[in-house]
Amino acid sequence: MTDSRFQSDEWKIIETRFEAERGRDSESIFALGNGMMGQRANFEETYSGDTLQGTYVAGIYYPDKTVVGWWKNGYPDYFAKVPNAPSWTGIKVRIDGEELDLAACKIKNFRRELDMKEGVLTRTFTAMMPSGRQVEVTAKRFISMSQPERAAISYSVRLTGGSGTAEIIPWLNADVYNEDANYDEKFWENESAEHDGARAVVVAQTRKTAFVVATAMENTFTVNGKPAKSKASITTAVNSAHCTFTSAYAEGDTIEVKKYVAVLSSFNHPAEGLAGKAMSMAGEAARKGFEAMLRDHTKAWEKKWEHGDIVIKGDIAAQQGIRFNIFQLNQTYTGEDPRLNIGPKGFTGEKYGGSTYWDTEAFAFPFYLSTADTHVARNLLLYRYKHLGKAIENAQKLGFTGGAALYPMVTMNGEECHNEWEITFEEIHRNGAIAYAIFNYIRHTGDQNYLAEYGLEVLIALSRFWAQRCNWSQEKNQYVILGVTGPNEYENNVNNNWYTNTLARWTLKYTSDSLEWLRSASEVKYNSVVARTRLDTQCELSLWKEIINNIYLPVHYDLGIFLQQDGFMDKMQQTVKDLDPAERPLNQHWSWDRILRSVFIKQADVLQGIYFFEEEFDEEAIRRNFDFYEPRCVHESSLSASIHSVLAARLHDTESAYTLYLRTARLDLDDYNREVKDGLHITSMAGTWLAIVEGFGGLRISNDRVCFNPVIPAAWSSYSFIIRYRNNPLRVEVNGSAVNVVNLSKAAIPLAAYGEKLTLQPGEKKKFKKS
Amino acid sequence: MTDSRFQSDEWKIIETRFEAERGRDSESIFALGNGMMGQRANFEETYSGDTLQGTYVAGIYYPDKTVVGWWKNGYPDYFAKVPNAPSWTGIKVRIDGEELDLAACKIKNFRRELDMKEGVLTRTFTAMMPSGRQVEVTAKRFISMSQPERAAISYSVRLTGGSGTAEIIPWLNADVYNEDANYDEKFWENESAEHDGARAVVVAQTRKTAFVVATAMENTFTVNGKPAKSKASITTAVNSAHCTFTSAYAEGDTIEVKKYVAVLSSFNHPAEGLAGKAMSMAGEAARKGFEAMLRDHTKAWEKKWEHGDIVIKGDIAAQQGIRFNIFQLNQTYTGEDPRLNIGPKGFTGEKYGGSTYWDTEAFAFPFYLSTADTHVARNLLLYRYKHLGKAIENAQKLGFTGGAALYPMVTMNGEECHNEWEITFEEIHRNGAIAYAIFNYIRHTGDQNYLAEYGLEVLIALSRFWAQRCNWSQEKNQYVILGVTGPNEYENNVNNNWYTNTLARWTLKYTSDSLEWLRSASEVKYNSVVARTRLDTQCELSLWKEIINNIYLPVHYDLGIFLQQDGFMDKMQQTVKDLDPAERPLNQHWSWDRILRSVFIKQADVLQGIYFFEEEFDEEAIRRNFDFYEPRCVHESSLSASIHSVLAARLHDTESAYTLYLRTARLDLDDYNREVKDGLHITSMAGTWLAIVEGFGGLRISNDRVCFNPVIPAAWSSYSFIIRYRNNPLRVEVNGSAVNVVNLSKAAIPLAAYGEKLTLQPGEKKKFKKS
Repeated sequence: MTDSRFQSDEWKIIETRFEAERGRDSESIFALGNGMMGQRANFEETYSGDTLQGTYVAGIYYPDKTVVGWWKNGYPDYFAKVPNAPSWTGIKVRIDGEELDLAACKIKNFRRELDMKEGVLTRTFTAMMPSGRQVEVTAKRFISMSQPERAAISYSVRLTGGSGTAEIIPWLNADVYNEDANYDEKFWENESAEHDGARAVVVAQTRKTAFVVATAMENTFTVNGKPAKSKASITTAVNSAHCTFTSAYAEGDTIEVKKYVAVLSSFNHPAEGLAGKAMSMAGEAARKGFEAMLRDHTKAWEKKWEHGDIVIKGDIAAQQGIRFNIFQLNQTYTGEDPRLNIGPKGFTGEKYGGSTYWDTEAFAFPFYLSTADTHVARNLLLYRYKHLGKAIENAQKLGFTGGAALYPMVTMNGEECHNEWEITFEEIHRNGAIAYAIFNYIRHTGDQNYLAEYGLEVLIALSRFWAQRCNWSQEKNQYVILGVTGPNEYENNVNNNWYTNTLARWTLKYTSDSLEWLRSASEVKYNSVVARTRLDTQCELSLWKEIINNIYLPVHYDLGIFLQQDGFMDKMQQTVKDLDPAERPLNQHWSWDRILRSVFIKQADVLQGIYFFEEEFDEEAIRRNFDFYEPRCVHESSLSASIHSVLAARLHDTESAYTLYLRTARLDLDDYNREVKDGLHITSMAGTWLAIVEGFGGLRISNDRVCFNPVIPAAWSSYSFIIRYRNNPLRVEVNGSAVNVVNLSKAAIPLAAYGEKLTLQPGEKKKFKKS
Repeated sequence: MTDSRFQSDEWKIIETRFEAERGRDSESIFALGNGMMGQRANFEETYSGDTLQGTYVAGIYYPDKTVVGWWKNGYPDYFAKVPNAPSWTGIKVRIDGEELDLAACKIKNFRRELDMKEGVLTRTFTAMMPSGRQVEVTAKRFISMSQPERAAISYSVRLTGGSGTAEIIPWLNADVYNEDANYDEKFWENESAEHDGARAVVVAQTRKTAFVVATAMENTFTVNGKPAKSKASITTAVNSAHCTFTSAYAEGDTIEVKKYVAVLSSFNHPAEGLAGKAMSMAGEAARKGFEAMLRDHTKAWEKKWEHGDIVIKGDIAAQQGIRFNIFQLNQTYTGEDPRLNIGPKGFTGEKYGGSTYWDTEAFAFPFYLSTADTHVARNLLLYRYKHLGKAIENAQKLGFTGGAALYPMVTMNGEECHNEWEITFEEIHRNGAIAYAIFNYIRHTGDQNYLAEYGLEVLIALSRFWAQRCNWSQEKNQYVILGVTGPNEYENNVNNNWYTNTLARWTLKYTSDSLEWLRSASEVKYNSVVARTRLDTQCELSLWKEIINNIYLPVHYDLGIFLQQDGFMDKMQQTVKDLDPAERPLNQHWSWDRILRSVFIKQADVLQGIYFFEEEFDEEAIRRNFDFYEPRCVHESSLSASIHSVLAARLHDTESAYTLYLRTARLDLDDYNREVKDGLHITSMAGTWLAIVEGFGGLRISNDRVCFNPVIPAAWSSYSFIIRYRNNPLRVEVNGSAVNVVNLSKAAIPLAAYGEKLTLQPGEKKKFKKS
């Protein structure tokens, strides 16, 4: 089914060979995280081979100085990066003075296993050291999902081939760098280390932003399963701490350390006293013990799977792929803190700086909306709400006034970080996705009150932006939006991108309608919103209405399609089939200007709009657009195929939907783009979830009703998923002939499948036969 | 008339106050050069204040590593910079151990004088040193126009206020840096110094490109006008050489040094033996002596002025301004070496790297064509001819094939240096200016044979580019050119820029016509061109014809204007008058996206095309376009106003022409843009010349005839210029009522003025009365 490096398994990712040249790849694949911190699968013991050391703490960032070839007015001064944080995984192993280093050993029985059900990473191997000494190692670690500032490692070494003295040295290190630093700057300063009894801590502070991170450890040692007789000795240097356990060993002895770690940051605690607090927490963890911590952790993961597992029968690679994606999405974002968001690579690498992109609202949002408690999606909305002031400032920098907001393309704290004019200043459709997420949230959750409390403030600021950003064209006798970049970044600075204009119009309309609804629902709340936003209900609303009624949306009447932008039909009309495969991907083979003037599309653009507003178009219109644009799309964004897959399924073209689905399902596991070494494509993983649940499953929330219209790929015998509608879980199982829906909640749920409408009572199960 | 820092003078630039904060400005203004080397007006004596040390040697470059925010496929790896070369102007002055440093002195009678007639820079001042010692200095220097690798400085110090010991120390230094190095890299390596008798030399080699420069000096000393009795002692360090002359002085004594310098580079000589050769040359200069060298130098300048002076009566500031421009153009490029070209800042600063831009063909070319011997302009054409192979490679990198050429936007050796996709890849109209220069050259010189020898090879490669760069639009049923940037860089990535499409069409036509002409003129030469270019005379020529006949040129029929590009009329229509003056210049006040989507134009775009092909349009068409575009043009390029001025004069709007002329006439002298510190706007100086000769003077070469249609600004009583037509000098004098033309040559010259046609015999003078 797949030529993956990893064994087929429903719940596990299993690597059985040590491949030094794929070391970074595996470090990404086997990364762990819990929404508060993350860790690449770096080896515990010393490793002199190629590695990307990666320890990340959520919310912490460093404003790395902008690099630019030619400065354009309005560029931001910095690009926020998630700094590689003080390292806590290290455990040195020294046998008779010889240090264990897999880059120098002969290795047998290497096995790395990520148990996605429990969130545990295990690694075992037998290493023949250059001296001939042999050790068998079992390392097991997890980052607690139940106590999110803690982690634990169990590391055991069995010594064969003689006797002598062994040293096991867990350590911490605050002297860390980012590979992607623009000017080789160090992001940390004021590093220190201290110890107290059996515990040690290292502390470091980010330069400029002054975030403090304290990383503490306590370690316990056993020999052949019994508590060690000798004590470990702790030493600290300026920015590191070592805990050295020395023991005589005889043939066949096993020495084991349990390393309990606490990682605290000033993002969540006062900076003062952080070191002591971290040491106490590491101590608490040690007292609780590895197994007890692991039980709580596993229980938390059980709950995550209960909320959002997808089961695929008949295709174990697909099963593994989707679970890997769900697992990583849950490792990245747990939704407990509205100051956090979803970096495109989560906690698995440095690239893209761990910052927030429109990926969140356009691709990742529906996953959390359907698989987690309502407050999780709400916190994603609140993240943008909290950044509204900065978004208004951002728009001001570009010349907008009166409370208009332009959310940043890339951000950590609400400020814009990105510096390509064609993206930063022109890819303004991101504002539309932020409005759409509010609509989507309310549609799913029924939480209309969010509009009055927060949503309308954002919507009004977005509408103000659109109203200023369009201009009247005397030539067209309509409003136009000039100089934008659509989702298809293989076009820049175009006029009247249909997707952007459509979102602009829709936002104005949704804002107006929402205001109208609130006015009738609660005069008090309406007045409060108007007062808070200083909305001029006369002038502003009538201008918006004027634009809604008169905005230009490019259409090609002969072809019966929406036109991606003005002039699109002037291009040489080709399809992807006309391309020489040797020239793919285009972005590695064609010069940028050639890409720009070609007809080829990077990712869904018109089709992204049709995906958002599907109900507004009849099936034939969707088909004409799909048939025109899909053959021109090279899917060179990891976010592309999934949206196309959803639409293909909508058009009952299961085969195309499945082909497209396969392009993203195991993108990282099978490393299609040879870039997994840099980290995982977290946000595109949500696209794969969309392709199953909204694509094959056909899930739509329409007029306060959960609707399905499932299809099933020929390769699968059945698939099922659990989603939450207004916080009520539903289990949906699809096979070749029917869809079975079970209401797992305590509320009645209005349902439709294959056109049949009914209300499913609590606990009720219903089979809908495929028509 | 002007609030210039400089005194009014017809032939001189005179500064009478020492203003430390304008130090860099004056270093640019008073820069010297001779086409082979250039030197900012850095002080000879030590100066601890703010300064940009600038010594430049023609042809030498360093490939400075590209800086880029976000890499796009096709970007070049380096940006060629003219390195700041080993310094030769230095003369330390030490009085009783106290070093003369104007930053530490009280200064009286400061005067700096650039004599443009003779090309000599003189500086005098009286300085009160911190100790109270007083010195009167006169420094005079020139870079020889007759012996272009030599320079000489005469530096005399009169000592008042006591007696003691003075040291005068001429020095050389090869330990030099560029301020504009992208990564603070040093551009030089392998520095060395040596001396031999009275001479010393420093040698340095550019890293990567391995150009060697040897800079030698010999010095002679006098005391009170008599040869010094004591000898100077020479010392060398790793990369510097000092010649120390020590003398007792009494009240009122004058010590003078004459420093003779030779600067040789491996661009012109074998690297081996360069140091010895430089020392010999410095020695020869010393033997010849300062006054004799100066006489030769002055004579060479006399000839330059004889070829191309402009005399303006009644406006001394204008007279000074135009002479300054002519002087600088002649200092920058002498046309003796087809490997050299005209950097936008010449030898007066680091900015723009001393590289070649389209400025050469579009703006500077006509100046040299009309004011110098024919071979000068021919060498400018040969420069591009020699780069044809690189231009073809450059096009290949962007996906073009079959010998299509795209000349670089910025280059030193034919390779592209610039890295902004919207400029580098899309500002392709530069190809058109290169074709136009060939046409212009032949029209002026009658040297048709250039086509057969060189011109057609370039034209065919350019035509191949255009034929591939356009594509057939099914929608328009015409050929289109998508994704370009026109001369107006306040628009990027537009479709069907009228100027670009017009140049493309014209190039195809001119190439076809030239081939046709050659075929009838010489079958042998025609066949040779066809063979050398492997031209497919069937397919390629018929495709070109097809494109010539069917290329889309955007027009707005209602307004009767050519449309700058598709969609231009969708913009909010405003004029410059609508702008808040506080927001000017736009490029410093508006974000880039706002500039792009606005209607405002940086520099002539449609009007540049009308300027080039004026004969193809009737006066009313020119007027409609001028009246539409000029009010939308913010003239934020130094190249803009002059082209507009020429067209305004063409439309008999002398007042507008003069207003526009004033925007560039003294751009650097009066530092309109507060950036003269970085260097002079050399190429835009040619625009000022155009505004007078082609604008007010109305010079056109049309059907082998020199035509004038002069107007005169109200502020001037008369103006006259000398131009060469087919190497025959003509003097043209315009006053309020007539134009007087004198044929200074030995050939009959066909003439037209105010519509009257005749042939002017050698020596003949003719007065054309204004109609």
